[in-house]
Amino acid sequence: MTAALTLHTYWRSSAAYRVRIALHLKGLAFDSVPVHLVQGGGEQRMPAFAARNPQRLVPTLQHGDAVLTQSLAIIEYLDETFPGVPLLPRDALPRQRARTLAQVVACDIHPLGNLRVLQYLEHELQLPADARTRWVARWVRDGLEAFEALLLQHGAGDFCVGDAPTIADCALVPQLYNARRFGIDLAPYPAIRRIEAACVALPAFEAAAPERQADAPPA
Amino acid sequence: MTAALTLHTYWRSSAAYRVRIALHLKGLAFDSVPVHLVQGGGEQRMPAFAARNPQRLVPTLQHGDAVLTQSLAIIEYLDETFPGVPLLPRDALPRQRARTLAQVVACDIHPLGNLRVLQYLEHELQLPADARTRWVARWVRDGLEAFEALLLQHGAGDFCVGDAPTIADCALVPQLYNARRFGIDLAPYPAIRRIEAACVALPAFEAAAPERQADAPPA
Repeated sequence: MTAALTLHTYWRSSAAYRVRIALHLKGLAFDSVPVHLVQGGGEQRMPAFAARNPQRLVPTLQHGDAVLTQSLAIIEYLDETFPGVPLLPRDALPRQRARTLAQVVACDIHPLGNLRVLQYLEHELQLPADARTRWVARWVRDGLEAFEALLLQHGAGDFCVGDAPTIADCALVPQLYNARRFGIDLAPYPAIRRIEAACVALPAFEAAAPERQADAPPA
Repeated sequence: MTAALTLHTYWRSSAAYRVRIALHLKGLAFDSVPVHLVQGGGEQRMPAFAARNPQRLVPTLQHGDAVLTQSLAIIEYLDETFPGVPLLPRDALPRQRARTLAQVVACDIHPLGNLRVLQYLEHELQLPADARTRWVARWVRDGLEAFEALLLQHGAGDFCVGDAPTIADCALVPQLYNARRFGIDLAPYPAIRRIEAACVALPAFEAAAPERQADAPPA
């Protein structure tokens, strides 16, 4: 596969952050095209972007002529297409564990706190800022509590599943970044914090971090 | 693999419905254990159930000693463990398409309208019934519109991806059942309706339907 990889991304999107981690872990070269999700009503809503991704969401990955959407499905595709540095364990049960943890984040935490939902809470439901923060905190805490319990139940290794990063770590670290933005205390989740420390020590996680992206505002 | 399969399910849970479809499509025998999500404050919140699944959600599948959670991760596990009647296409790009469509439902539609969120809207935010229905309708319509556009962009076959049901169809049909519960008009989605008709004509989808479950109330 020599077709070019182009990632449509936004520095602070946690779903795009997942895919950036995966690309860097696999050592795949890619171009980044920033899509500003807020400025001017959101570049993702422009017809040129919507023609590429009808969901009008980042990340969107182009691989040659193919346009790929949904962060976890993109990571599975990368794993099948570029099998070096696997992001899923080899055996069925650990694979299930890794996907489960990734889906706890992607299905049960992140969707409730993403931009379009926060905008609905603010503009349609007229919810004040403190009530919006309580909303996000509720789902993040519920989700991280379950994530922590699943790590203990499954028996994590140095990373979420075993001793190398998987799709679960690609999902976890961006969610923790998000949790901190909302001031959520991560002290109750020691296994999660131990794994996060192992992840962020790796150059791939560092290179994928929001503040390291070209479209991040100056510190 | 001869270990027994036991599904903890609730007749009207659309995530459990996805796994029921997958089990029936694969022709796998399984026992159903009903978990009533509403009665008595929710059986899923009881310690015995929470010990099995810290997320306190259905579906939960036991396969021998292994306890599996998250519907899409369960379906991937079943597909890898019981490869007869595959629920993912063979090649990387159609596999990506099938997972993307399943995730449009599981990450971007369903989480915003599930029971715990509706309870929060009602009890914490004191939102009246019509505002709760508008909330659900907004995310279902956004999601189905994108799903329909992706079907046209990818080029669906008789089913969502190609000419046999995949994980995408396992996710779509329960979401349509849910949409109808909220009175959402499906007329704007002809490709979706065509595929739904092909699905529900199959005995596996019929056997998995909510009203066919032992824990469904009498009609």
